[in-house]
Amino acid sequence: MSKDGSRPAAVSTPGSAGSQVPGKPSEFDLIRKYFTRPVRHTVEGIGDDCALIEARPGMQVAISTDMLVEGTHFLTGADAQLLGHKTLAVNLSDLAAAGAEPRWATLAVALPDASEAWIAAFARGFFALAERHSLDLIGGDTTRGPRSFCVTVMGEVPAGRSLKRSGAIAGDDVWVSGELGGAALALAARLGRTAIGADARAALDHRLDAPQPRVELGLALRGLASAAIDVSDGLVGDLGHICERSMLAARIEYALLPQPQALLALADAQLRSDCLLSGGDDYELLFTAPATCRDELGALSERLGLALTRIGSMHAGEPRATVLDASGNPIAHRGRGYDHFA
Amino acid sequence: MSKDGSRPAAVSTPGSAGSQVPGKPSEFDLIRKYFTRPVRHTVEGIGDDCALIEARPGMQVAISTDMLVEGTHFLTGADAQLLGHKTLAVNLSDLAAAGAEPRWATLAVALPDASEAWIAAFARGFFALAERHSLDLIGGDTTRGPRSFCVTVMGEVPAGRSLKRSGAIAGDDVWVSGELGGAALALAARLGRTAIGADARAALDHRLDAPQPRVELGLALRGLASAAIDVSDGLVGDLGHICERSMLAARIEYALLPQPQALLALADAQLRSDCLLSGGDDYELLFTAPATCRDELGALSERLGLALTRIGSMHAGEPRATVLDASGNPIAHRGRGYDHFA
Repeated sequence: MSKDGSRPAAVSTPGSAGSQVPGKPSEFDLIRKYFTRPVRHTVEGIGDDCALIEARPGMQVAISTDMLVEGTHFLTGADAQLLGHKTLAVNLSDLAAAGAEPRWATLAVALPDASEAWIAAFARGFFALAERHSLDLIGGDTTRGPRSFCVTVMGEVPAGRSLKRSGAIAGDDVWVSGELGGAALALAARLGRTAIGADARAALDHRLDAPQPRVELGLALRGLASAAIDVSDGLVGDLGHICERSMLAARIEYALLPQPQALLALADAQLRSDCLLSGGDDYELLFTAPATCRDELGALSERLGLALTRIGSMHAGEPRATVLDASGNPIAHRGRGYDHFA
Repeated sequence: MSKDGSRPAAVSTPGSAGSQVPGKPSEFDLIRKYFTRPVRHTVEGIGDDCALIEARPGMQVAISTDMLVEGTHFLTGADAQLLGHKTLAVNLSDLAAAGAEPRWATLAVALPDASEAWIAAFARGFFALAERHSLDLIGGDTTRGPRSFCVTVMGEVPAGRSLKRSGAIAGDDVWVSGELGGAALALAARLGRTAIGADARAALDHRLDAPQPRVELGLALRGLASAAIDVSDGLVGDLGHICERSMLAARIEYALLPQPQALLALADAQLRSDCLLSGGDDYELLFTAPATCRDELGALSERLGLALTRIGSMHAGEPRATVLDASGNPIAHRGRGYDHFA
């Protein structure tokens, strides 16, 4: 972490600097204790003004950054360990969508206070996921402020082989991994907008709180998928991004959308459609591929133990996604992706 | 920006996604308009899940990240254009301290509302500095939340030639660029803790609000300086980091510290010492170099039009910085660097 995680405090008084409370671990100590781990593929890790990395020959570095803010992306009082997981997971999901192999991350954390137990739990969640993907934490920053986290994640991808939103071709199939709408349904239940049985609820909560970035799938899709994006803002909105960048229309069939049983069983058809079509936070991969790849994608699904469902296709036309009902008529739906300021 | 800057909103309702207010520019539009600029040395910039970069042959990538939070790093109501500048400047200062050439940055922004005028001014400040250093903005995130900014900056440095905190050798001189304490004095005046004449105040305010990262100096110090750090947390604290990493003691002479006239003239000796020794936000470079480099450093100072002042030396001993008065006695002083949670 730069300056071992400290930073100038423009509203601090000169001389307030460094006044240590005896017996209380300092910011520096906490960072050293919880966020400094051995690195595996980094020239210089935490401890200097900058970290140093070097990509392997022939590799490009894929980079993404996301900020999670209390009250906007997670509820006040959210579990620290789950937040540590999710903060990294949403970033790894972007690497997955690019077909990049996770390598390095920086983490900036703003906290209202330095509760050691909270920091330890957050670090536990963060590093459990980082280890799983052999990711080095190479730098960061800690500061006092309203609870928020900013991760910048970096991965390697062979030059010219990254997955992009722009590569879809008319006639390509549209595929999605896993299930859609579970995270949104969990949130609706948490906010009291619908009631769901305890068993189903636990699985849905897990979808919302501990999303699994589809990193292995992203790597396997290099050379198979023509375009890809992760579903973080809702199916229709995210497919719309592929449409815009590929300058094509997409048609998907509502009846084909893979979904949790609890969503399928929902009496409230409007909520169900909202969750499926514009619910965020699923972090599945949405991708297009030529019809010639169907068998190979079927085999890949088997190998990964992860459902891959063909939900529609790409066509010449106005660059947006249309959802069709069982009779082939367009379904009216809300939204094209979450807009924080709308 | 990932997802064109949008992000999942775990506390949004399913279906709230994308409800556009007619006539009001969306988050997407604002980002497109103000934060998407042509890139110069980037494989893929803003617009996909990840950006893609590729370092030039023989180069390593130096990385640093800093978060600035309202109420902690800047006062409520701070000027947007100056904040845009400073958010990037504090990060470029870390690259300078590593002797790295600025190349790429990501920017995450949390804002309580999407005031177009505010965003335009922030972008103006950010990009004016980015252009000066030929830096590409390659990605980011925008979200609703308490005002804060997180920049991750990346630069290139020839393999093995970066400046580090750890390279100082006993007998090396200690140098600092520019002047110390000006930013802290400006802050003290702003908070009403001291009074300063209007002319001096304007120059000090500029130091505090629009720090100039010493990028050219950092590049020129490769091969000259044995260790380096930027002074963001205060002279004694930051020199202490060089001491710890180089396992040496540092002795500096109070009378040699370069400072603005307004600080030299200050009647309050305690405030003066606080500003000089532990005032943050100066963003000068503090470095060590062998005595054989004095002439060359003098010539470099001339060439850059930037004062370089020899303020002390490195010695075997307990790894910390001691400040000596005119009689060679240690000066008691507060603090070893700002601790946000102390």
